[in-house]
Amino acid sequence: MSEKMKVAVMTALNELEMQERDIPIPQADEVLVRVDYVGICGSDLHYLEHGKIGNFIVEYPFVLGHEVGGTVVALGEKVKHLQVNDRVALEPQITCGECAFCKSGKYNLCSDVVFFATPPVDGVFQEYVAHKGTLCFKLPENVSTMEGALMEPLSVGLHAVLQGEATIGQTAVVTGTGCIGLTSMLALKAMGVSTVIVVDLVDQRLEKAKELGADYTINGRNEDTVKRILEITAGKGFDIGIETAGSEITTRQLIESAKKGANLVLVGYSPTGEETLPIGMALDKELTFKTVFRYRNSYPTAINAVSSGDINVKDIVTHTYDFEDIKTALSDAINKKDEVVKAVVRIGRE
Amino acid sequence: MSEKMKVAVMTALNELEMQERDIPIPQADEVLVRVDYVGICGSDLHYLEHGKIGNFIVEYPFVLGHEVGGTVVALGEKVKHLQVNDRVALEPQITCGECAFCKSGKYNLCSDVVFFATPPVDGVFQEYVAHKGTLCFKLPENVSTMEGALMEPLSVGLHAVLQGEATIGQTAVVTGTGCIGLTSMLALKAMGVSTVIVVDLVDQRLEKAKELGADYTINGRNEDTVKRILEITAGKGFDIGIETAGSEITTRQLIESAKKGANLVLVGYSPTGEETLPIGMALDKELTFKTVFRYRNSYPTAINAVSSGDINVKDIVTHTYDFEDIKTALSDAINKKDEVVKAVVRIGRE
Amino acid sequence: MSEKMKVAVMTALNELEMQERDIPIPQADEVLVRVDYVGICGSDLHYLEHGKIGNFIVEYPFVLGHEVGGTVVALGEKVKHLQVNDRVALEPQITCGECAFCKSGKYNLCSDVVFFATPPVDGVFQEYVAHKGTLCFKLPENVSTMEGALMEPLSVGLHAVLQGEATIGQTAVVTGTGCIGLTSMLALKAMGVSTVIVVDLVDQRLEKAKELGADYTINGRNEDTVKRILEITAGKGFDIGIETAGSEITTRQLIESAKKGANLVLVGYSPTGEETLPIGMALDKELTFKTVFRYRNSYPTAINAVSSGDINVKDIVTHTYDFEDIKTALSDAINKKDEVVKAVVRIGRE
Amino acid sequence: MSEKMKVAVMTALNELEMQERDIPIPQADEVLVRVDYVGICGSDLHYLEHGKIGNFIVEYPFVLGHEVGGTVVALGEKVKHLQVNDRVALEPQITCGECAFCKSGKYNLCSDVVFFATPPVDGVFQEYVAHKGTLCFKLPENVSTMEGALMEPLSVGLHAVLQGEATIGQTAVVTGTGCIGLTSMLALKAMGVSTVIVVDLVDQRLEKAKELGADYTINGRNEDTVKRILEITAGKGFDIGIETAGSEITTRQLIESAKKGANLVLVGYSPTGEETLPIGMALDKELTFKTVFRYRNSYPTAINAVSSGDINVKDIVTHTYDFEDIKTALSDAINKKDEVVKAVVRIGRE
Repeated sequence: MSEKMKVAVMTALNELEMQERDIPIPQADEVLVRVDYVGICGSDLHYLEHGKIGNFIVEYPFVLGHEVGGTVVALGEKVKHLQVNDRVALEPQITCGECAFCKSGKYNLCSDVVFFATPPVDGVFQEYVAHKGTLCFKLPENVSTMEGALMEPLSVGLHAVLQGEATIGQTAVVTGTGCIGLTSMLALKAMGVSTVIVVDLVDQRLEKAKELGADYTINGRNEDTVKRILEITAGKGFDIGIETAGSEITTRQLIESAKKGANLVLVGYSPTGEETLPIGMALDKELTFKTVFRYRNSYPTAINAVSSGDINVKDIVTHTYDFEDIKTALSDAINKKDEVVKAVVRIGRE
Repeated sequence: MSEKMKVAVMTALNELEMQERDIPIPQADEVLVRVDYVGICGSDLHYLEHGKIGNFIVEYPFVLGHEVGGTVVALGEKVKHLQVNDRVALEPQITCGECAFCKSGKYNLCSDVVFFATPPVDGVFQEYVAHKGTLCFKLPENVSTMEGALMEPLSVGLHAVLQGEATIGQTAVVTGTGCIGLTSMLALKAMGVSTVIVVDLVDQRLEKAKELGADYTINGRNEDTVKRILEITAGKGFDIGIETAGSEITTRQLIESAKKGANLVLVGYSPTGEETLPIGMALDKELTFKTVFRYRNSYPTAINAVSSGDINVKDIVTHTYDFEDIKTALSDAINKKDEVVKAVVRIGRE
Repeated sequence: MSEKMKVAVMTALNELEMQERDIPIPQADEVLVRVDYVGICGSDLHYLEHGKIGNFIVEYPFVLGHEVGGTVVALGEKVKHLQVNDRVALEPQITCGECAFCKSGKYNLCSDVVFFATPPVDGVFQEYVAHKGTLCFKLPENVSTMEGALMEPLSVGLHAVLQGEATIGQTAVVTGTGCIGLTSMLALKAMGVSTVIVVDLVDQRLEKAKELGADYTINGRNEDTVKRILEITAGKGFDIGIETAGSEITTRQLIESAKKGANLVLVGYSPTGEETLPIGMALDKELTFKTVFRYRNSYPTAINAVSSGDINVKDIVTHTYDFEDIKTALSDAINKKDEVVKAVVRIGRE
Repeated sequence: MSEKMKVAVMTALNELEMQERDIPIPQADEVLVRVDYVGICGSDLHYLEHGKIGNFIVEYPFVLGHEVGGTVVALGEKVKHLQVNDRVALEPQITCGECAFCKSGKYNLCSDVVFFATPPVDGVFQEYVAHKGTLCFKLPENVSTMEGALMEPLSVGLHAVLQGEATIGQTAVVTGTGCIGLTSMLALKAMGVSTVIVVDLVDQRLEKAKELGADYTINGRNEDTVKRILEITAGKGFDIGIETAGSEITTRQLIESAKKGANLVLVGYSPTGEETLPIGMALDKELTFKTVFRYRNSYPTAINAVSSGDINVKDIVTHTYDFEDIKTALSDAINKKDEVVKAVVRIGRE
C-alpha cells in the first residue's frame, strides 16, 4: 500500500478537488479499510450546493461521502473479529456508548455522535479510511462491497419500516422514490407487507419502483393520490405509510388516505421544517406518527437481508462512476435527478 | 318505579327543556339504570352552543350527557353479572363486536359505534337509561356513583397516558387543565411518573392541578413555557407530553421542550383542526406522536385505580348541581370557565 | 341445492359413517357455505383414536373437521360483505364479542368460544355449513378454496411467529415438521427471517421443509441438535425458536441453543402436559417464553400473504382425497405419518 | 483521606478477615467513592457459605458486596457530571458498550460484563472504591446513601416488573418475600397495580410485606395458595406474577392461578436450576414467561421513584451494622433468615 492516498476534497461551494493525504494509521480499536465503493446521498449534494444542512455548516476543506463498502487492509491490535481481506460495510456513526441514549439502545440519539461527512467530521470520498472495528461489519461471500456501501441507505429504510411496526399482510404506502423511498419499499416487501403502493411525480422513478417490487405506483401529477389509494385499498386506507418525499402535501395525503389506527413514519424533511397538517383528522383516526433520525442496530439486519436474498438492494443503483469522475458523478446526481436514481462511486478495486 | 321520567331535552341552540318520557324497558341483554350522576363535558357545552362538532350535527330534540354513574333497577334476562341495587359506571360506547377494529381490541375505532350524546344518539341527562349490560361496570363498595360518572373522563386520561407508554420514573408535561388534562395528570402520577409539569393560562386551574398532585405548574401567560420546562428538567426535556389544550402553540412548545425520543400524545382538537408544526425538529429528535380517539378497555382499569386509592378522581369536581338546576349547571360551565373546573349533575339519589 | 347433505359422522372410537342430514338454514347473520375442502388436523385424528383431548370429550354422534374453504350459496339478510358464489375461508371460532378478552382483542381466550370439531360442537366433514358471516373471509381471485382450508393451520403458524415477534434479518429454529411446524416456517420466511433451521426426526419430512424454504434441516436422530444449531449460527444461537414437536427434549434443545435474550414460542403439547426444563439456564439467558392457544385476527393476514405470493401454503399438501374416501384419508394420516405431511379432503367441487 | 483503607476479605469458606489495602486511584473516566453503605445480598451469603454460584467460583482472597451507596471524594479528569461530595449510587455492572447486546440496550446480557463481587471481580465491602463515572448516579438531596445502596435490589425488582409489563389497574402476585420479592412489590404498587398479593411461608416476612404496602398476603404453609388467589381475584386469576422464591412449587402455583393471557416473570433460581412445570396448562392459558438476568437502565428510574416518594425503599431494611461488625451482619443474615429481611452495613459516615 502506498503511503499517500487520493481524497476528493470540497474546497468551496460546488468545488471539488482531488488532493493527496496521508493514509491514516489505525488506532488499537480501529481497522484500516480500502474504500471500494461510496454511494452518493442527497445530503452530499446538499452540502456541495449549499454548504450546510440546518445547523451543520461546512468548513473547508471538507470531505463528503458516508455510504461505504470496502476491504480490510490492516487491523488495530484489539480488533479480533476481522481479518485482512475481509470485505466490510462501515456504519458511519460513532457514539459514546455511555449516555442514557446509548445505554438504552437508542444510540442514534447520542449527543456526542461523530458521523462521516457531517461537519466538522470528514467523509470518505478517499481511498482509505481508518474506522472503529466494531462499526465495520463483515460481508458474507455473496455480498459485494458495492452492496456494502448500500447498507447505509438500506439502514434508513429498515429503521423507518421497523419504527412503523410494519408486519406481514399489511398494505403500505411510500411517498417519494428517492433512495430512501426505494429502500423503505424493499424493506416493506421483505417483511411480508402484501401490498406496497409507491407515490411520486416522476414516471421514470416510479418505473424503477415497480421494477424493484412495488405493487402499485401512483403519479401524483396525473392522479388524485388519495382517491387512488382508497380505490386500491377498497376504501379502507392503508396500514402503514412511509413519507420520504419531505413534503407537506404528501404527508397530508397520507393522513387523508390512512386507515384508522394506522402508523405513519415521517422520514423526509420539508424545505422549511414547518408543515401545516390536518391534526384534527389524525385524532379522529387515532393515527400514530413515528419519526426517524438516521438508524440504529440495523447493519447486521441489512446484511442478513441482502445475503439471504430477501432484499435486492443492488438494483437500486442506476449509475456507477470511477473515482476520477467523481465531479461528473455529483453533477449528474444534481442535474439529472429523474434519471439518476442512485449513483455510486467506485474507488478501490474489489 | 314510576313509568315516566324527567329528561332534560335540548330543543334548540342554547335551549334546554325539562320533559317527561317513558322510562325505557331493558332488552334481554340490557340493564335499566337509575341515573345518579352525570358529568358535564366540554362536548355537551359545544353541542349546546353550536349545535354541532365536526360532522356531528344535532337534530332536535336531543339529549346531552354521556358521563354516567347510576344504580341498577332492573335486568334483562341474559344479564348475569349484575344484580338490582348494584351501583355501576356506564361506558357510553356500543360497538359492533365483529369488525376488524373490534376483533383486534381497538373497538373505539369501530365505524358502527353508537355513543351517548353524539348525534343522532341521545345522551343521559334523564332519570333512567337502559344500557347494554356488558357496558355497565359494577362499582366496588368504596366507589360512589359520582365517581362512577367520572370514570368516563378518567378513561380518556388513562387512554392518553397508556398510548403514550408512560412509565415509572419519567418526567411528563401536560398542557391544558380541563378535565382531561387533570385526569391525564392523575393517571401519570398513579403510574409512577415521578415529575408531572402542568401548563395552562389560568392560575385558578393551575392551583387545582397542584392540589391534585402536579409537581410543577407553569402559567404560559407569565412564563416562557419551553424555557421553564427545560429548567425543571435540567436541560434534558421531558419523556412524555400530553397535549389537551387543543392549541398549535402548546403542541409546538411540547415539540421544543421534549427530550429526544420522547412520546407526545395529542388529545385536544384545535379550533380549525389544522396545525402548523415544526416537523423537522420532531424528526431531529425522533419524536413519536400518538393521538387518541376516546378510549378502549379502560373502565375496569379506571374503577380499580379509583377503588385502590391510586387515583383520587372525585376531587376534580368543583361544582355539583341538582337536576332541576341543570340549566344553571350548563351556563355556569360556559360562563365561569376558570372557576368551574368540573361540574356534575346529581339526578337520582344514591 | 338438494335439501339433504352428506355428513361423515364419528359414531364411536375409530368409527366413521356417512349419514344424511338436513342442509342447515342460515340465520340472519349467517352464510350458507358449500364446503369445498377440509384439511385433516392432528386433533381430528386424536379425537378419532382417543375420543378426547384434555377435558374435551367426544359424545357421539360427532363430526370432525375444522379447516374449511368453500363457496357461498346463500346469505342471511344481515350479511352485506359477501355474495353468492364468493369463495371463502371459514374461521372456526365463534366468540362472545363482549368479555374482557374479546374486547381487548384476545378473543381466542374467550371462555364462551364455540369451535368447530371441539366437543360438543360439531365440525365440518359435511357438504354444507351455516357459519357466522363475519367469520367467512372472502378469498381473492388467485386463492383457491383448498388454500382457503389451509388458512386455519397457517393461522396457527402466523400467530406463533407473531407472538414470538419474529422480524427481518433474524435466525430462527423450528422444532417439529407437522403442519404447524411447516406453516410456522413459511411465516418466518415470509416475514424476512433470514435463516430458518428446521429440526425433526424424519428425513422425508425434513426434505419437505427444505423444499418449502427451510435454509437448514437437522435430523435429531443423527445429529446433535444443539451443537449443529450453534455451528450454523457461528456459536451465537438463534433469535427465535418455535417449538411445535410437543416434546420436552426439543424444548430443552431450544433453551440450550438460544441466543441470550431470545424468544421461544411453545406451540406443541407434550403428552402429559408436564415438562422438566432447565429454567435456571433460561434465566441466565433472560429468555422469553411465549405460548399460543389457537390464534386471533389472523385470517385477513393469512389470506393476504397467500394472495401476494409471500406464503406458498398449498405445497404443504401431500395428499388429496375425495369425500367418499374420507376413511382412507384419516387412516392414511394415522398410519403413514412420515409420508402424509398434510392431507385435505375435497368435498364440494370448486 | 488516608492512603490505606480497610477491606473485609473473604479468605476461605465462611472466613472473613479485615485487611488493609491501598485506596485505589481513579482512572480518567473514574470516580473515587467513599463507600457509605453496602447492602447484604443473598448472593454474598451464598458465596460465603458455598464458594460458588453456578459456574462462578470464588478464588481467595475475594471481596463480597455489590449494593453500594457512597460519596464522591475524587474525580478522574474526564468525569464532568459529578463533583466532590456528591452522594451517589453505584451500578455494579461494567459492560463493553460495543457488542450487539450493548448497542441494542440489553447491556445486562453483554458477555464481557464485569460485576462487583462476581468472581473473579472483587466487591465493595471496603472503605473506598474507584468506579466508572458514568455508572455513579448522583442522588438528589432527599435520598440518602443508604437508599443509594438499595437502588441495586430495587433495580432487580423494577426490571422484573417492567419485563412483566405491569400496568395500572392490574392484579399481581409476588411469590417470595426476600429483598427482591419486596422490591418487586414496591415497584408494582408504585406503577399503579391495584392489588398485590404476596405469598411466602414466614409470617414475619409477610407482615413486613403488608407493612410495605401489600394488599393481601398468603402464608402457603397454612393456606391453599392457588385457591386463595382465585378467591381474592373473584375466580379470574391474576394479570402478572413475579416469582422470586426460586421454587418449582410457587412457579406451578402461579401457572395454576394465572388469568388467561397473563405474564409470569421468573426471577428466582431453584436449587438445581431444573423445574417440572405444567406447560400444557400454560399453553391453554396462553401465558407468557419472562425471565430476568440482573437489570438494565434502571438506576435513573429507581432514583427518581425513591426521590418522588413513589417507592419507599428504606423501610425494607430491618438491620444496620457497622463495618467492624460485618461478620455478625453476615452470620445474622444466614442464621436469622426469618427476622433479617434486609441488612445493610454502614462503612463510611455520611
